[in-house]
Amino acid sequence: MNQSRINRVIENMRQDGLSQILVTAPASVFYLTGAWIAPGERMLALLVKDDGSAVLYANRLFALNGNVEAPLVEFDDTDDSVAILAKAVAPGKIGVDKFWPSQFTIRLMEARPDVRPVLGSAPVDRARMQKDAGELALMREASRLNDEAIRRTIAGLREGMTELEASALYLANARAVGGSGCSFEPLICFGAGCAEPHHASDDTRLKKGDAVIIDVGLVYNSYCSDMTRTVFFGEPSPEQQKVYDVVRRANEAGRAAVRPGLPMKLFDRAARQVIEDAGYGPFFTHRTGHGIGLEVHEFPDNSATSEIIAQPGMVFSVEPGVYLPGQFGVRIEDLVTVTDTASETLNAEPRELRVV
Amino acid sequence: MNQSRINRVIENMRQDGLSQILVTAPASVFYLTGAWIAPGERMLALLVKDDGSAVLYANRLFALNGNVEAPLVEFDDTDDSVAILAKAVAPGKIGVDKFWPSQFTIRLMEARPDVRPVLGSAPVDRARMQKDAGELALMREASRLNDEAIRRTIAGLREGMTELEASALYLANARAVGGSGCSFEPLICFGAGCAEPHHASDDTRLKKGDAVIIDVGLVYNSYCSDMTRTVFFGEPSPEQQKVYDVVRRANEAGRAAVRPGLPMKLFDRAARQVIEDAGYGPFFTHRTGHGIGLEVHEFPDNSATSEIIAQPGMVFSVEPGVYLPGQFGVRIEDLVTVTDTASETLNAEPRELRVV
Repeated sequence: MNQSRINRVIENMRQDGLSQILVTAPASVFYLTGAWIAPGERMLALLVKDDGSAVLYANRLFALNGNVEAPLVEFDDTDDSVAILAKAVAPGKIGVDKFWPSQFTIRLMEARPDVRPVLGSAPVDRARMQKDAGELALMREASRLNDEAIRRTIAGLREGMTELEASALYLANARAVGGSGCSFEPLICFGAGCAEPHHASDDTRLKKGDAVIIDVGLVYNSYCSDMTRTVFFGEPSPEQQKVYDVVRRANEAGRAAVRPGLPMKLFDRAARQVIEDAGYGPFFTHRTGHGIGLEVHEFPDNSATSEIIAQPGMVFSVEPGVYLPGQFGVRIEDLVTVTDTASETLNAEPRELRVV
Repeated sequence: MNQSRINRVIENMRQDGLSQILVTAPASVFYLTGAWIAPGERMLALLVKDDGSAVLYANRLFALNGNVEAPLVEFDDTDDSVAILAKAVAPGKIGVDKFWPSQFTIRLMEARPDVRPVLGSAPVDRARMQKDAGELALMREASRLNDEAIRRTIAGLREGMTELEASALYLANARAVGGSGCSFEPLICFGAGCAEPHHASDDTRLKKGDAVIIDVGLVYNSYCSDMTRTVFFGEPSPEQQKVYDVVRRANEAGRAAVRPGLPMKLFDRAARQVIEDAGYGPFFTHRTGHGIGLEVHEFPDNSATSEIIAQPGMVFSVEPGVYLPGQFGVRIEDLVTVTDTASETLNAEPRELRVV
């Protein structure tokens, strides 16, 4: 139980006009209680009220009794878990986590017609957005290990290897350097597949002249890393070199623009401007980045419409890319954290054009 | 668009007193439209009404236009997707898929205070429960391939190998025999880890005297397989032999009990009775099985409380197990389908005690 985090959440609840919320995302429950529970189809909820209380409702099979500091209400598979929770809810508005399966929200409304569910993830999302010193230390280490894992993976690329074999190589490296797992399925692609920003690794084989996009992340002590490097297998063509240089400068500009007090849309603008000025604007088809922490995608977006003001402790990705359909693609991604005066980049792996 | 399946769903809606439902689980949308869409954080819904209509609401980035037969309403990330859907919903009760993220249900209620969400997965779940001839052919083939993949994996077990290496071996075999992927993370465990029914594979190494549980499934043409075999690495102890024999007989009894017209709890009872009679009742700690099809866990349970009446075309697992904490465990799982007169087992891999 992290009472200072609970208090920050309650402050946010007051700002949002909420006197009670149900925190149900496993990462948010972990953030507030220290217990990471994957509930599957079962109900899991931390009921936080603005009187300072926070009570965890969880299935007995997760064996939390004695293993979690939060006040605990347990139930079995044969109990009506929602009915048990419903008894503790106050009348009126209740903030509900955005991903709570609808079956629970609907059964809560049926059990308590005097309760009105509204969107209620924002108070926790805003608290999680600003990492504290302990969290930042873990995120720095996660990215340092990810640098090492990607370096070993690039060193292991061989002609004729499939994308899936390269992914398996990264997985092995991520574990070897001390990661507990991956923060997402490795996105490794060769050649024309690189022109699809979310190409899933398949049996495509590495051949001379391919651009290779390696978008990978590992988990260290529950915190996620996420980075992308693009390298060339054999001498790149003049257009590959040109596009690489544009994306590298966009990544640099996107990171250099970061400072506290500015709306995040300016960071997206800084990266995008470089690509637009070079004439590749229509081929940068996604947002510049996303928040990251206990989950690989967290609030807020680093995008053209983000009015969120950057504050010290925020961590997000800067990952501009250019994708030329049927030909190749280039993406370069780093994590940055906002400091008191500017920003710090968590990845140290070089960004110069690399031929392997 | 599969109009006969839509019609079956509408029949089920009438039985449940629902005139409109939102189908949102990707597997259910695939079942009715033929399009498998992983919506991530984006809204996806098929609005089915009892007038026979079914309209798909999907983000334009899934590029469904021209690729799906269902009438289609598309939207962009900048559109208010729920507001667009809300316009098409009729006043009154609407059945909502159990796993639809609450954010959509809540925003639908805000946009349409005259609409009342209730639980609405059952009409599609009951339709999916009874597989047609085409589905059964795919499920037979998926299990045939899974037999082959588990056979190769057992043949590849070596002293000192880790559980994770054995899992990677199964993954490679599943792809080599023609599976498109796994229906779940392979659960392969050695020795004492086998005493936890949901032990996640780790760095434990295979050694003489270990029981080895291999619980694996692959996907073939979107349909899931799922089977478990327990083998012994080196000569089993007398107790291991005894427990194995009990579980093998429980698996046989659980399958032999299956016939149409009977409540499923009788199948659980048949398997459980063998284990209880042998004195191991307290060590069989889970349900006997689960429905399976497009998803590895589907409605209905094969459990002690299931009143569902078995009908031809249903497919579910029979997977009794005995888990002796700190020592070892044994589980033997097969998929069965209900036929017009009894049942058919989809797995042909032998169940005799095997020493490798």
